[in-house]
Amino acid sequence: MYLENINDISDIKKIKKEELPQLAKEVREALIYKLSNTGGHVGSNLGVVELSVALHYVFESPKDKIVWDVSHQCYPHKILTGRKDAYSNPDKFKNVTGFTNPKESEHDLFTIGHSSTSISLALGLAKGRDVFGGKENIIAIIGDGAMSGGEAYEGLNYAGEYGKNLIIILNDNEQSVAENHGGLYKKLTALRQTNGLCEDNLFKGLNLDYLYYEHGNDVIGLVDVLEKAKDIDHPLVIHIHTVKGKGLKYAEEDREEWHSGAPFNIEDGVPKNGYPKYDTTVYDSLINLLETDDKSIVLTAGTPRALGFVGQVRDEWEKIGRFIDVGIAEENAMAISSGIARYGGNAVFGAYAPFLQRTYDQLSHDLCLNNNPATILVLMPGAYGMKSNTHLGLCDIQMFSHVPNLIYLSPAYREEYIRMFDYAVKQKEHPIAIRVPNRFINSGMEEVTDYSILNKSKVVKEGKDVAIIAVGTLIPKALEIIAEVEKKLNIAITLINPIYLTGVDEDLLNKTGENHSLVVTLEDGELDGGYGQRVASFYGPSEVRVINYGISKHFHSDFNADELLAENGISADNIIDVIRNTFLID
Amino acid sequence: MYLENINDISDIKKIKKEELPQLAKEVREALIYKLSNTGGHVGSNLGVVELSVALHYVFESPKDKIVWDVSHQCYPHKILTGRKDAYSNPDKFKNVTGFTNPKESEHDLFTIGHSSTSISLALGLAKGRDVFGGKENIIAIIGDGAMSGGEAYEGLNYAGEYGKNLIIILNDNEQSVAENHGGLYKKLTALRQTNGLCEDNLFKGLNLDYLYYEHGNDVIGLVDVLEKAKDIDHPLVIHIHTVKGKGLKYAEEDREEWHSGAPFNIEDGVPKNGYPKYDTTVYDSLINLLETDDKSIVLTAGTPRALGFVGQVRDEWEKIGRFIDVGIAEENAMAISSGIARYGGNAVFGAYAPFLQRTYDQLSHDLCLNNNPATILVLMPGAYGMKSNTHLGLCDIQMFSHVPNLIYLSPAYREEYIRMFDYAVKQKEHPIAIRVPNRFINSGMEEVTDYSILNKSKVVKEGKDVAIIAVGTLIPKALEIIAEVEKKLNIAITLINPIYLTGVDEDLLNKTGENHSLVVTLEDGELDGGYGQRVASFYGPSEVRVINYGISKHFHSDFNADELLAENGISADNIIDVIRNTFLID
Repeated sequence: MYLENINDISDIKKIKKEELPQLAKEVREALIYKLSNTGGHVGSNLGVVELSVALHYVFESPKDKIVWDVSHQCYPHKILTGRKDAYSNPDKFKNVTGFTNPKESEHDLFTIGHSSTSISLALGLAKGRDVFGGKENIIAIIGDGAMSGGEAYEGLNYAGEYGKNLIIILNDNEQSVAENHGGLYKKLTALRQTNGLCEDNLFKGLNLDYLYYEHGNDVIGLVDVLEKAKDIDHPLVIHIHTVKGKGLKYAEEDREEWHSGAPFNIEDGVPKNGYPKYDTTVYDSLINLLETDDKSIVLTAGTPRALGFVGQVRDEWEKIGRFIDVGIAEENAMAISSGIARYGGNAVFGAYAPFLQRTYDQLSHDLCLNNNPATILVLMPGAYGMKSNTHLGLCDIQMFSHVPNLIYLSPAYREEYIRMFDYAVKQKEHPIAIRVPNRFINSGMEEVTDYSILNKSKVVKEGKDVAIIAVGTLIPKALEIIAEVEKKLNIAITLINPIYLTGVDEDLLNKTGENHSLVVTLEDGELDGGYGQRVASFYGPSEVRVINYGISKHFHSDFNADELLAENGISADNIIDVIRNTFLID
Repeated sequence: MYLENINDISDIKKIKKEELPQLAKEVREALIYKLSNTGGHVGSNLGVVELSVALHYVFESPKDKIVWDVSHQCYPHKILTGRKDAYSNPDKFKNVTGFTNPKESEHDLFTIGHSSTSISLALGLAKGRDVFGGKENIIAIIGDGAMSGGEAYEGLNYAGEYGKNLIIILNDNEQSVAENHGGLYKKLTALRQTNGLCEDNLFKGLNLDYLYYEHGNDVIGLVDVLEKAKDIDHPLVIHIHTVKGKGLKYAEEDREEWHSGAPFNIEDGVPKNGYPKYDTTVYDSLINLLETDDKSIVLTAGTPRALGFVGQVRDEWEKIGRFIDVGIAEENAMAISSGIARYGGNAVFGAYAPFLQRTYDQLSHDLCLNNNPATILVLMPGAYGMKSNTHLGLCDIQMFSHVPNLIYLSPAYREEYIRMFDYAVKQKEHPIAIRVPNRFINSGMEEVTDYSILNKSKVVKEGKDVAIIAVGTLIPKALEIIAEVEKKLNIAITLINPIYLTGVDEDLLNKTGENHSLVVTLEDGELDGGYGQRVASFYGPSEVRVINYGISKHFHSDFNADELLAENGISADNIIDVIRNTFLID
């Protein structure tokens, strides 16, 4: 047992090189133990066990600085840097996050969760080192999947003229989240097949030094490679070949399935809590479009499963050329969508809200300035969406709702989404984004709304004196709150779903102002710059009181959505207080 | 005379190939005539005269689709596609914009002004063609400078597995706006020197077909090259070598100076209206920092002149490694800034507001999530900044002010900027962005403000009943407006500069609410999601009336800032009306 004696990075150095495989074995066991109990990123972590051991054996972290791209593969690094209890002791499982985190350890340089940033961040550290006159090694580890992102290329290109120490380890496990896409990957295959010797090496094409090492899961071999690279005086790309999911047969065989997941039985990989059921509303809408409109094209940027596209169905639509995965390259997907729409085709690009952040300029300039009618599906937005500070959807309204020409629609129910989607893909007037709820609820009502009437809101429920305007995703919660408030205060509250987040329904708000003296807005995104402040602005010159509730400006993490909303005033208790205070009633 | 007979693209085809040089000569003359009278993008347009003629001779636009990257080099294309009068007839000079514009011509596919988008947009058109079953050619023309941008790489990478017609013309004139930066350019040099035959071709490294043509200003040779490429059944990169500024000796010799500029005398290049005087406030602040803090580093993404860095001074600081130009790669610059700050260095990254749009994710995730204390200078923001719909700074407050951990400061006067800059670069608490006014005015007052007090606003002038809160850049205008209003209505108006755009000064607003019943907010950016709506939200529950003024949500273009502001209510006349209506006074 070596791992139990590793409390500090210096303990790793005491081990003889030939004994490192045993340490790696123990790290892998700890990893599997926790992964099988908590879930997490399986494949990427199992693949870099040996690399992590070798890095910490050869380099002197934290003096030498290691930057993990995306950092979802940092678990072995955490095990080796003083945090092994969080992998072996169930009581301490929650002591670490799933990403590098400077608050946990001096060995973690950045809080990171988005792809393709490591080379640029490492260049910044290198630049810092150079103005301080330091001599340490700066190391970036980036996966082959992340190499499709533009930021990685910008970093590589600049590294190509950076004449000082920088070690870029390309961890090539032949897999992104799903399969890789792009011409780059044909060349990475050729490089693997020729032991790095094939013609037209992309990295050398950017003026970078390059070496290939095939045995990326051979810890002793890796140590030898890294020892030669240590203290190098210029940027070097070390391309290593690893096995994603290494050590778990089923994970090695189905790398996409085992990118990340829930707790599982180690013997057979069967989920401990059963196979998850996915809502197919978005998938059904897309398949229906593909089947009924032969000029329609669905785009993803590296996350086809987010749209429900897996297996044979995906293969078939990709072969036809109407399901496109551009790799982790959201900017490209947004611009391609604009081009398709410009031609008259029907493009639908769906992505998780935090990753759409990378398309802000392409959304504004490439798409909306040209007013091309593509459809954007914003997945996992708001407090009910993603819940790690590295992956947040709390600012989608801020990012989308001020962009000229864009229409941003927010459905409350499954039926509304289906009808809005149908409207979006059939119209040719504007780019339209739809804020897709993370949990679909049926309204049970037939949907006949005409969503083409610009900025037309929907009155969900009529009352008087008090009106609540709740962004679509919060309508079900608002109804719950209202039921409680009405019961307690014996009043009738109006509830409005704005539908359009890119404007206000002036007629309705004027009418509402006539018999309501208090308007409360609720949104499950950030308060500052959100939808509610537009309502406050509208009523600013009038006597109507407006109180806006939304999430505080902070990189929230690991929260319970309902609790976070309540902390920010979105609860029956608070609304009761507000109404009592405003109307001076008990 | 050939040009006078070219009214339509079909007229070009009637010319014999050997007579095309004469047509090119006439196009160049027309170009120089207009450029010398109006200014504009000189170098890039002169360089692509022959390419433009050859493209329209060989291909069948608009059926074949030509996408110009950045599109600031589209003047010859416009001359050849029915718009020559706008270059030869001074009365019609203003009939065309400086960028491609679908509203002008069916030969223009997109309204475009940002760099590195053409390959992705062309891929979208190609995809549209393919679902429609079309057979035409899709062509993207991209300069070597634009090749440093991540979006271009994402497009190239996807093109590398796109098995259908796409022609990417890399127009290599050995120059970006300033000189090129990145390892790529070493290889482009090698490709030029070896007639495209050197090892480790970047494009082949992305699985793309490639050919080199040295004589990019030989129209007959270009026609031969393009004829061979026409109707090709897979993506092809044609790398051509052109001379930026071709035909004007001084422009060929000083390519950076002649990237774009004002009207000039054709004989000697001397500006007709004299050499412009640049305000050196930003430059002085940066040089002072570099000279007094040896851990400071200034970054630009391809536009060093925007920071005042030219000639020998730039060369010297670049050589020392403390002035960094990463090329047109804003994402990389933002992430590097975060890395430098993480190390303890003092990074200042300055860029034009519209180009910072490309860093939204890096600003939020790479920098602010990590709360690294870099300084970002936002240049040319607001209505007084850039004024083309392709280059707008009307949404910087929307983009910056909701990002957690970021502080966004807005100075009104030169003295305020200098003191804020000093505060920003010395503090280690937060990333700070400064909204740099496009025109600096002296307050004439000694600056002793402590800008470290979070969200502390500044009372510029005390009055009662009516308060105006004006974003920094509008403070001088607000004072003018107030002088007129006070004279007319015989009242005293309070004026507040919020200073911090990332929060409101709750104490001051509460105090202001005690003896002011009307608060008017003024901002020179978009109203929706802007600063004023935060003030409306703050006062929403109270009796204070708030009226927000800002720019309407639209891609405004070619506007006069004062007129645009007045149209949106920011004028003495309107404020007088508002006060009269609110207080029912005459």
